[in-house]
Amino acid sequence: MDTSADALRSSGEKPPPLDLSHHFSEVTKRRMPSEMKRAYNLFAIPGIMNLAGGLPNAQFFPFDTLEAQAANPERWTPSSDGSAVPATHIAVPKASSEPDVMKRIDLSTALQYGQAQGYPPLLSWVRQFTREVLHPDFAYKGGPDVAMSCGSTDAFAKVLHLFVNAWTEGINDVSERPGLLCDKFVYGIPLSEGLPRGMNIVPVNSDDSGMSPDALEDVLANWDSSRGKRPHLMYTITLGHNPTGKVVSLERKKEIYAVCSKYHVLIIEDEPYWYLQFPSAAAEEAKSRGFQEPNTLPREITSTTPYPFLNSLTPSFLKVDTDGRVIRLDTFSKTVSPGCRLGWVTAQPSIIERYIRITETSTQQPSGFVQSLVAELVIGPQPEAQAAFARATLAGTASKFSGWQMDGWVRWLEGLRGSYERRMVRMCQAIDTGIHEIKTSSSISSDWGVVTKTKLIDYTWPRGGMFVWLRINFESHPLWNAPSTTNRPIDGLTLSTALLMFLTKKPYLVLVAPGSMFSSNPEIRAGSGWAYYRLCFAAETDENVDASSQKFVEGVHKFWRIKSAGEIQKLVDSFPHASGVESLADSMAQMGTWLGC
Amino acid sequence: MDTSADALRSSGEKPPPLDLSHHFSEVTKRRMPSEMKRAYNLFAIPGIMNLAGGLPNAQFFPFDTLEAQAANPERWTPSSDGSAVPATHIAVPKASSEPDVMKRIDLSTALQYGQAQGYPPLLSWVRQFTREVLHPDFAYKGGPDVAMSCGSTDAFAKVLHLFVNAWTEGINDVSERPGLLCDKFVYGIPLSEGLPRGMNIVPVNSDDSGMSPDALEDVLANWDSSRGKRPHLMYTITLGHNPTGKVVSLERKKEIYAVCSKYHVLIIEDEPYWYLQFPSAAAEEAKSRGFQEPNTLPREITSTTPYPFLNSLTPSFLKVDTDGRVIRLDTFSKTVSPGCRLGWVTAQPSIIERYIRITETSTQQPSGFVQSLVAELVIGPQPEAQAAFARATLAGTASKFSGWQMDGWVRWLEGLRGSYERRMVRMCQAIDTGIHEIKTSSSISSDWGVVTKTKLIDYTWPRGGMFVWLRINFESHPLWNAPSTTNRPIDGLTLSTALLMFLTKKPYLVLVAPGSMFSSNPEIRAGSGWAYYRLCFAAETDENVDASSQKFVEGVHKFWRIKSAGEIQKLVDSFPHASGVESLADSMAQMGTWLGC
Repeated sequence: MDTSADALRSSGEKPPPLDLSHHFSEVTKRRMPSEMKRAYNLFAIPGIMNLAGGLPNAQFFPFDTLEAQAANPERWTPSSDGSAVPATHIAVPKASSEPDVMKRIDLSTALQYGQAQGYPPLLSWVRQFTREVLHPDFAYKGGPDVAMSCGSTDAFAKVLHLFVNAWTEGINDVSERPGLLCDKFVYGIPLSEGLPRGMNIVPVNSDDSGMSPDALEDVLANWDSSRGKRPHLMYTITLGHNPTGKVVSLERKKEIYAVCSKYHVLIIEDEPYWYLQFPSAAAEEAKSRGFQEPNTLPREITSTTPYPFLNSLTPSFLKVDTDGRVIRLDTFSKTVSPGCRLGWVTAQPSIIERYIRITETSTQQPSGFVQSLVAELVIGPQPEAQAAFARATLAGTASKFSGWQMDGWVRWLEGLRGSYERRMVRMCQAIDTGIHEIKTSSSISSDWGVVTKTKLIDYTWPRGGMFVWLRINFESHPLWNAPSTTNRPIDGLTLSTALLMFLTKKPYLVLVAPGSMFSSNPEIRAGSGWAYYRLCFAAETDENVDASSQKFVEGVHKFWRIKSAGEIQKLVDSFPHASGVESLADSMAQMGTWLGC
Repeated sequence: MDTSADALRSSGEKPPPLDLSHHFSEVTKRRMPSEMKRAYNLFAIPGIMNLAGGLPNAQFFPFDTLEAQAANPERWTPSSDGSAVPATHIAVPKASSEPDVMKRIDLSTALQYGQAQGYPPLLSWVRQFTREVLHPDFAYKGGPDVAMSCGSTDAFAKVLHLFVNAWTEGINDVSERPGLLCDKFVYGIPLSEGLPRGMNIVPVNSDDSGMSPDALEDVLANWDSSRGKRPHLMYTITLGHNPTGKVVSLERKKEIYAVCSKYHVLIIEDEPYWYLQFPSAAAEEAKSRGFQEPNTLPREITSTTPYPFLNSLTPSFLKVDTDGRVIRLDTFSKTVSPGCRLGWVTAQPSIIERYIRITETSTQQPSGFVQSLVAELVIGPQPEAQAAFARATLAGTASKFSGWQMDGWVRWLEGLRGSYERRMVRMCQAIDTGIHEIKTSSSISSDWGVVTKTKLIDYTWPRGGMFVWLRINFESHPLWNAPSTTNRPIDGLTLSTALLMFLTKKPYLVLVAPGSMFSSNPEIRAGSGWAYYRLCFAAETDENVDASSQKFVEGVHKFWRIKSAGEIQKLVDSFPHASGVESLADSMAQMGTWLGC
């Protein structure tokens, strides 16, 4: 931190974000700056006839409206599922006479070529939501800007393009090899994009509260430059971590941020589950396990939005981002649907500017179909368009719809949080019934039986997100380390693969995600990755949440009764991969892409 | 061509495409192969409950249907605009019980995470259209595969990622510098993506029939390796070239292809206007100019689809692609709307496989909103979904809609071709009235006037596409080479900039695209780029096509009456760019991104 920044801060004014352009990749640096603002005047001449742009005329679009039956924001109540709340018909008209492009939602603009930063009315709404509601207390002068993305996976690929020079062994010098810091257990797709670029994936250990600042300091302070450049990028999820379900507190975030600032590390914060934080988790967990409810102090409320729901949530890294080194990825995938392929990036303006340049010559913009329908949903029609649509439809039901607005949007998120939290509680309650194997062995010579209690499953209820992260204590299995039908004794990976396959057989029919999918490198995969399973309580139908959790527990217990090494080997062999046990991990890692997790 | 391929061919069997994997970039080579097919069995177990995937349940998507008022394919008749043909209401239901994923169109699948290759029913339809209707006579064994794209700009960026190692002066060896062959005048966005990657842009001269095979041979045979690696990629548009409006014949394609094959060049063929070929252009041009209609032989019909319209069109490079070196880019931008951000790539299967790997960790898939609505439009609902929707709506009008089907899709394209062809004819007729400046100077001492005829505009009517490409003969302007108010005499770039700005003033109010935007390098820009303007007959409203063309002609003629160097300088100064005349070209090149041309 330089002294002028300190001076500004002591005067009560926020300093501007740091200039981080030395972190840009060579390709990113070479992208042309935009001359658009100056040239824009030519398009804005009143009455100008445009023969310059190579655009088809909107007359020739075969869609005259886009419409939808859309939920009201009250559909899912925070306390109980109110699925009876009806839907509303929404429609995007072909053309609107609204002169303000920030307000005009119609197909003549939404289905035409548009701005890389986003469809103006939606961009304007997202910017307002981001700056005034989601992160009202930004930490540097002027605060962050936003740009729409085609979902966070694409945003992440573009952020790597922005900051990373691809590296090839034997061609590039090892001192230039870029690195990516991440959690020990990590969502896999970002690594699948980083690895082909030649990046060092650098795991950092966690404790119960999330990534450990001491472990991070240790990695960076003792960096061995024979491995490559000291990493200048971190990828992390902090609010409902995938796969571990942790929520990283603001206090912990400050500690991690201080280390990142010291070592000039940029933080890519991917938060698809930020609004899925579960206040009941600690109490319900204690109740389920017969413990006394932990006497934790209520978290300090640091946000001051008009929405108690939002104020109750742990905030983003952006809250402590005095340097402008945080790039936050948001998505509509979990709040609207994954098929949107729509999200946004939040970062200091000079990073957003480069992001837009990359977008202009690749994806150009998210699809106008989804941008206009989501805009219509959350903003609603302008009064003029509303009346026109009412005239054009027989029923005229649309005339009363005025969009969810910010209140409705926050209400929708709160309803989703309630629904997912209830699913989580039901799944964890079901699993808790099967944590231990209890065996009573009676002996003929005595009047009493001997009760042995073996812990099969070890886990903490998730504090956020969509996942339960379990450690299966394979070490307690009767066949642990027993001779196998192959040359080696039965190890953890073998038992883990066998149980995964056992669970997919009748009568269990449950598919879980193995820890190997989330192990950030082969050592972690071999060392302890096999011990973990991730269970998602979001994907299945409501009815199946209970059924599948129970079947899972039954399956685990039944698996502990297998006494034959041959049966274990048969299960392992049934895994649909030709090249044997080891590549299960690789195979599962690849599955992640398809699972969309 | 190796001998085994020759042997196969002489036996009547097509040889397989060449292995081109040595052309893959280092990053592309390092991407993992997909293990999906093997792992897929796990998901396909009947009755399996999926706790593995990190997907939200479709119950929580706020969209219960997506709907639209959509045109019938007969809306635009090939002979006259039949805009009275009504629209049809279409709807994508929340869930369909259709078991075949290739046929199921519903929001539970379309708005969920999906396949990178594309939404199965739409992908299946596009594959059929591509292989059976658009390119029925593919030239290598098995023929090409397809993958959906987020529009051709994104497809092009991904194809560069697939084949090009980014290159940086001073870091990488000059012998490794990648090159991109292109037409002398070229659509600019692909260059905006290639240049930051450090590519050599290598223009090839054209004649009236398109890119010259001799010029191409000359460039490649005499390649100066001190400039970089001999280019292994070509970018070109051959059917309604942007900006020149040329259609490159099959005969010429064969000649260009032979050179590419000889020098191992991959061809990226970008064809957004392939169906906009104008059979009336030659005859109408002759009529307009009072020439005899050219007695050209009708083109040999080489395609054998059930559609006379398609058979009449000049085919793609894919028709002669015996090696599998053609990557064709298609888009729904001009047939449905640019805001779709939806298209597809066609190439040999091993290239498509790499393309899908790149997609999986970036865009993942085009938006399900547009994929499902376009699928619904062209395929139509399954009978079961149709009945369900009819029950759910009061009017039940949707029950009769069965999708455009292939017949309707081809009919829609033919209708668009007719509509754009009529616009083109009207614009060219209007411009033809102003090609010459005719001046009658009468002298007092004689009874007759002297008529002088100066050619101001030189052009050929476009044979396809959306653009009229004009050379303005600035050399005939009274102020050509005259002393200016600055140090230098008035040159072409000055006059061209001045005319561009003059046309934006009242009473003309016409904005045209300058040739500098399409000059493939600074030398071409300085040498002759300034002499050209591109006029688009597609973007403006129908009424304005005539008005804007007339205003353009009037403006050009009026500009020839300007006698004051000061007035010219004032016009140049009015160009909204701070850094002077030279950067007009840069500024305009950047405008291309925004114009979406």
